[in-house]
Amino acid sequence: MTQTDQWLRLRSEEGPNLKLFRARFDYMRNPRNGETERMIVLESADSVNVVALTAEQEMLFVRQYRFGIGQETLELPGGIVDPGEDHFLGAVRELREETGFTGSNWTYLGQVASNPVFMDSYIHNWLLEDAQPTHELHLDAGEAVTLERIPVARVRAMLWEGAFLHPHTVSALVRFFAHQTV
Amino acid sequence: MTQTDQWLRLRSEEGPNLKLFRARFDYMRNPRNGETERMIVLESADSVNVVALTAEQEMLFVRQYRFGIGQETLELPGGIVDPGEDHFLGAVRELREETGFTGSNWTYLGQVASNPVFMDSYIHNWLLEDAQPTHELHLDAGEAVTLERIPVARVRAMLWEGAFLHPHTVSALVRFFAHQTV
Repeated sequence: MTQTDQWLRLRSEEGPNLKLFRARFDYMRNPRNGETERMIVLESADSVNVVALTAEQEMLFVRQYRFGIGQETLELPGGIVDPGEDHFLGAVRELREETGFTGSNWTYLGQVASNPVFMDSYIHNWLLEDAQPTHELHLDAGEAVTLERIPVARVRAMLWEGAFLHPHTVSALVRFFAHQTV
Repeated sequence: MTQTDQWLRLRSEEGPNLKLFRARFDYMRNPRNGETERMIVLESADSVNVVALTAEQEMLFVRQYRFGIGQETLELPGGIVDPGEDHFLGAVRELREETGFTGSNWTYLGQVASNPVFMDSYIHNWLLEDAQPTHELHLDAGEAVTLERIPVARVRAMLWEGAFLHPHTVSALVRFFAHQTV
């Protein structure tokens, strides 16, 4: 690919602080027509999603009200990695805080972009097998969640039926079922 | 569920216009502790993702530079529904503009939330079978894409391997393969 085939970032400017994000505007030259486009990028920390299995082969889910769509969803536990925190430790912490479960048998299931179009962050997917209820819940001020345990075979059917509204829960479950079949 | 179990929207205020979105801040009362949280919602139109199959059972993908993550991705064709446009007509239009393919054998594959945490929009997944190359490409100023045709069996393997970085491509492919197996 030659230099002229690539989008070139001409300059960036800071945008407003949006609580979860900082908006940045990039001025990019289109290799197809040489025109400059102003593109928005929402900068944020990476997140984690955790597939946690109990010894009884139940998967842990959290049911919570989501402010974007204004209704409840059923999602994998997870959240935003803290500043300076390794994403593995973020996965351990978020699972413990949202479900009270911990364990030692962790496997990394890979990553997906949050939304490659306008976000710079990634979602890291972690698997915990033999998860044990060891802690009290510790919810952030903005959280009100209830825990559900669903047999793995039922989760697979729900994935296939389109029961999960959050695309990051869908992509994490795909990584998990791919991992299970190898 | 009683009134006090629910998050209550106390008020909303407009946020900055971010090109793709309009930011809105909602002041929500947490049913768990009665405290008020300021939540951001990015308002935008719905989008479409199209699974388009040729008569040779190849699926159409677009390769393009994505400004959020600063690298190329391989994604299903799609885009934002125009104001007042039905999402089916948006799917027909986006496929034609990005790939030059059209056809008549369309099936709705359901929806997923863009990101239920902070976005109010949905992604509608459409399947076109027997897609035919009938039109010239018609790209927006901000687009520079190349078309790829990938055999369906290979797409399934790539989905399983984690080859797709965009979570909405992953969730649309899950809807497609679920549809294929019923």
